[in-house]
Amino acid sequence: MTQARIHNFSISLDGYAAGEPQSFESPFGHAGHRLHQWMFATRMWGPDGSVGVDNAFAERTNAGIGAEIMGAHKFGPPGWQDDPAWTGWWGENPPFHTPTFVLTHREHEPLVMDGGTTFHFLSAPPAEALRVATEAAEGLDVRIGGGAQVVRDFLAAGLVDVMHLVMVPIVLGRGERIWDGLEGLGESYVIESVPSPSGVTHLTFTRRSAD
Amino acid sequence: MTQARIHNFSISLDGYAAGEPQSFESPFGHAGHRLHQWMFATRMWGPDGSVGVDNAFAERTNAGIGAEIMGAHKFGPPGWQDDPAWTGWWGENPPFHTPTFVLTHREHEPLVMDGGTTFHFLSAPPAEALRVATEAAEGLDVRIGGGAQVVRDFLAAGLVDVMHLVMVPIVLGRGERIWDGLEGLGESYVIESVPSPSGVTHLTFTRRSAD
Repeated sequence: MTQARIHNFSISLDGYAAGEPQSFESPFGHAGHRLHQWMFATRMWGPDGSVGVDNAFAERTNAGIGAEIMGAHKFGPPGWQDDPAWTGWWGENPPFHTPTFVLTHREHEPLVMDGGTTFHFLSAPPAEALRVATEAAEGLDVRIGGGAQVVRDFLAAGLVDVMHLVMVPIVLGRGERIWDGLEGLGESYVIESVPSPSGVTHLTFTRRSAD
Repeated sequence: MTQARIHNFSISLDGYAAGEPQSFESPFGHAGHRLHQWMFATRMWGPDGSVGVDNAFAERTNAGIGAEIMGAHKFGPPGWQDDPAWTGWWGENPPFHTPTFVLTHREHEPLVMDGGTTFHFLSAPPAEALRVATEAAEGLDVRIGGGAQVVRDFLAAGLVDVMHLVMVPIVLGRGERIWDGLEGLGESYVIESVPSPSGVTHLTFTRRSAD
């Protein structure tokens, strides 16, 4: 069974996954790199990185993934739909290496990149997007890649099987929150909490079986 | 030096310290007892309770405290100011055993209770309230007892030296949030995270020295 999985999704203590305003220069707004510093320090990110608990969690993001779904805000800065040359933040060889579905209401031709990534552009509600991505994943899992609104929408629709959040000990105060509209979410998951010497806390959500 | 300390302050994943609506029957609204179940299971709360990490943190709440400051919402349900017989939730012998300052704009005579608790009623901004409570604490520390608005106000005023939050793995969705208006708070504290086998995560905030 294909699972829908969220990995390495970093939030502040107050639940923001990005600051504001988001722009080409500052994709995460006033949050800067503070939400992702923990990941840059892992072996997954670079050969001198740590191999501790941060890395153990970080590396899971690619295991067994056959497709990704991401929101328009993750694919580019505000207005990217009007720039025909925009192909995402990641250069010629994006780190996805699978079919990758960008949720946007604007029509857009698919972009075939190096390394196995093809960006498809899709206007669909969560369940329909997941159906399309599951078919493309050919038996592997689908990663829900964020941002906050996409995570929220898929959680609210009850479509997420596995979620790994990384709580960073900062208070952002403003930006995109992931918790709104999710009252009662905790009851559907077994939630574990694991602190790292780096200062972040890993939170894993494993969906309870439906029996 | 007297310190201002917050202990055992329980919040949901999304940062709510109480649900809604608050009433005599449901002091924590739709949160019920879910935010405090971890504490009821400790040795501090009862002789059969656990003596693990939850208890170790829980017991610190009373050590070296000479006065408490609490908000009007903690002292009673909405409208308690109009009930001359209301003396708090805690019966004849409240668990404070020190001078206890209730922040309210309504004038009210002090209430001398059994066991050393005297409730004083005070209309004052945080710094002034802390000055009064510090004097009453006679060299001991002052506990900031909550609820959420009081915690927020004292944090925003930079008056909190030590804070112990307990993050409970539930999503409440609505109620009283502690994080609003505190952008940048993390920079003033060394923050540690410790998970408990009970499922909660203890977060401690130790104020950085001002040098």
